[in-house]
Amino acid sequence: MSRRIRRTPYTDRVEQVGVRGFSVVNHMLLPKAYQTTVEQDYWHLREHVQLWDVSCQRQVQIEGPDAAELVQWMTPRNIGKALVGQCLYVPIIDHHAGLINDPVLLKLAEDRFWLSIADSDVLLFALGLALGRGLDVQITEPDVSPLAVQGPKAEDLLVSLFGEHIRDIGFFRFGWIDFQGQSQLLARSGYSRQGGFEIYLHNGGYGPALWDAIWAAGQAFNIAPGCPNLIERIEGGLLSYGNEMTRENNPLEIGMDSFCCLDGSVDYLGRAALRRIAEKGVNRVIRGITFDGGPCPTCSKPWAVTVGGSEVGQITSAIWSPRLERNVGQALIKRGFWEHGQTVSVLSQDGVVRAGEVVELPFV
Amino acid sequence: MSRRIRRTPYTDRVEQVGVRGFSVVNHMLLPKAYQTTVEQDYWHLREHVQLWDVSCQRQVQIEGPDAAELVQWMTPRNIGKALVGQCLYVPIIDHHAGLINDPVLLKLAEDRFWLSIADSDVLLFALGLALGRGLDVQITEPDVSPLAVQGPKAEDLLVSLFGEHIRDIGFFRFGWIDFQGQSQLLARSGYSRQGGFEIYLHNGGYGPALWDAIWAAGQAFNIAPGCPNLIERIEGGLLSYGNEMTRENNPLEIGMDSFCCLDGSVDYLGRAALRRIAEKGVNRVIRGITFDGGPCPTCSKPWAVTVGGSEVGQITSAIWSPRLERNVGQALIKRGFWEHGQTVSVLSQDGVVRAGEVVELPFV
Repeated sequence: MSRRIRRTPYTDRVEQVGVRGFSVVNHMLLPKAYQTTVEQDYWHLREHVQLWDVSCQRQVQIEGPDAAELVQWMTPRNIGKALVGQCLYVPIIDHHAGLINDPVLLKLAEDRFWLSIADSDVLLFALGLALGRGLDVQITEPDVSPLAVQGPKAEDLLVSLFGEHIRDIGFFRFGWIDFQGQSQLLARSGYSRQGGFEIYLHNGGYGPALWDAIWAAGQAFNIAPGCPNLIERIEGGLLSYGNEMTRENNPLEIGMDSFCCLDGSVDYLGRAALRRIAEKGVNRVIRGITFDGGPCPTCSKPWAVTVGGSEVGQITSAIWSPRLERNVGQALIKRGFWEHGQTVSVLSQDGVVRAGEVVELPFV
Repeated sequence: MSRRIRRTPYTDRVEQVGVRGFSVVNHMLLPKAYQTTVEQDYWHLREHVQLWDVSCQRQVQIEGPDAAELVQWMTPRNIGKALVGQCLYVPIIDHHAGLINDPVLLKLAEDRFWLSIADSDVLLFALGLALGRGLDVQITEPDVSPLAVQGPKAEDLLVSLFGEHIRDIGFFRFGWIDFQGQSQLLARSGYSRQGGFEIYLHNGGYGPALWDAIWAAGQAFNIAPGCPNLIERIEGGLLSYGNEMTRENNPLEIGMDSFCCLDGSVDYLGRAALRRIAEKGVNRVIRGITFDGGPCPTCSKPWAVTVGGSEVGQITSAIWSPRLERNVGQALIKRGFWEHGQTVSVLSQDGVVRAGEVVELPFV
């Protein structure tokens, strides 16, 4: 690994606890696997608590007199009523309503925001917009490295370290904790459906100490190192930028209708395009697919979903669910075939054809 | 690997010839190693010919009435006199003169350009600038996947396939070849100092056939699969965005003076900042470092370069050179210590201190 693929404040620690491989997100290492299987991690995440190095969720900080204007310009979600202390899932779209990213927006002050981004250089997009339009903002990537604590025991673990007050932090809200004399941002959020928090550590120099403190306190809660779990993510209907959506997709077909203001009350880059799409109706939507035939292979390219020999969609992520005892996938499915219960065939990349069925997300 | 890390038109082929690992550049796979060592590949590249999947050098296509204006706005290099058919190395900088990328610009027509990019989403920066300023351009990522043929035998190999006319293509110029009835762009360029070409394949569907054709014809030239070689790159003074330079660096300290127009004849985003830097003089410059102590470890974080116990710079890439029989590195070195022959100490990440010396790039 060269310096181009950035290490995180926690990389030394994840290596010590036996990381077996990394992926790369935002030019930074994301642990991908430890000593256990995806299935073992899945059950552990549902029952206990895990510590995830998600530093690759980089923050794009936008501050200044025109900060709110710029953020609103990038997203179809109405951020006008957002409160300081709130996290908002905000699709970022271009002028054709193509998805550029799907970050979580943290409102730190009326004139200061963080976009906690998925895998594309949103900073450069925001910077280009600001320079092109002459907006009065500063756009930076602060020294902030999120560490996620996920799973049903996350709250009790963090209470044992940081105090009872964190129980009052609502879902997709953030508050503050003290760590070694520093105030740090703690949000009730994370890329799983098992509950938990993300600590947006400011100053990477504290990274190893923060990891160690949680790790030590976590022993009483059966803590394990982890990372976003593909089974849990797919079952939970959590989407992945670059997998389920790219700039080829608009937010309406990805199920983000509730995050798209179409009534004309706010203006943003892709508004005209998005309204045209809404008027015509989308031609495809994101759905779940369950399918048979034993554990499917890794999905590293789209798999055709067919009805009567015709392609009606594509699976973009898929894996065997040990809980449902079927394969589960996420797929864009064409109009006319997206109703719950539609029977389909799935052609996985090993050449096997499997019988399947369209279902709603999330899987239950 | 998920779909988020994109495969290339050649990935099936590089797997067939025994790729051992990948890196990720521009959300796409870059082969990193085959069955041989970096040292074996180094000697092979210097003597024979190699086939490199460099599809990750994505093209940002900028076309339309304002295309030249937008490109000029992003770079301090004067592109006003560039000719159709020319390749230009163009630093892309922000308003503080920080480096955003260091692509090769291909001028396809007076109103159509490709930026063949290093690892950052230049498309989003260009799109933001264009939307913010209201420029009349279309910005897209075309279906173009560069395949590099590098090494001293590259020309004879490609002549055997595509004809004698390619000998007339000058360095950093491009021409056209016919492959299966399609006209394809061929440039005399590449990320090595051993000579060679890059085919900017349009339409990835032809990828496997193009690979196979070159592979078959290459048997007579002792062809091997390859990838950018770290020994050759460092010796040759070729810089890597994300390693030797980031947005923390300006082009003058990275040795790009000749690509920076400072006389006021062209305007661009970072001009005022760059002129201020030029007037004051840079505080550090890129240099080579040779150092002793046997083969050094992998450089995955900056290494301190010291004189008399004080840090005077940082090595950002380093490796053992079997030809020079010393370690070679690239480093930013502070004013007062950057003269050829300056003795230094290098602290590599294994904790070893090694005696070294500042030299000019490239290494000879």
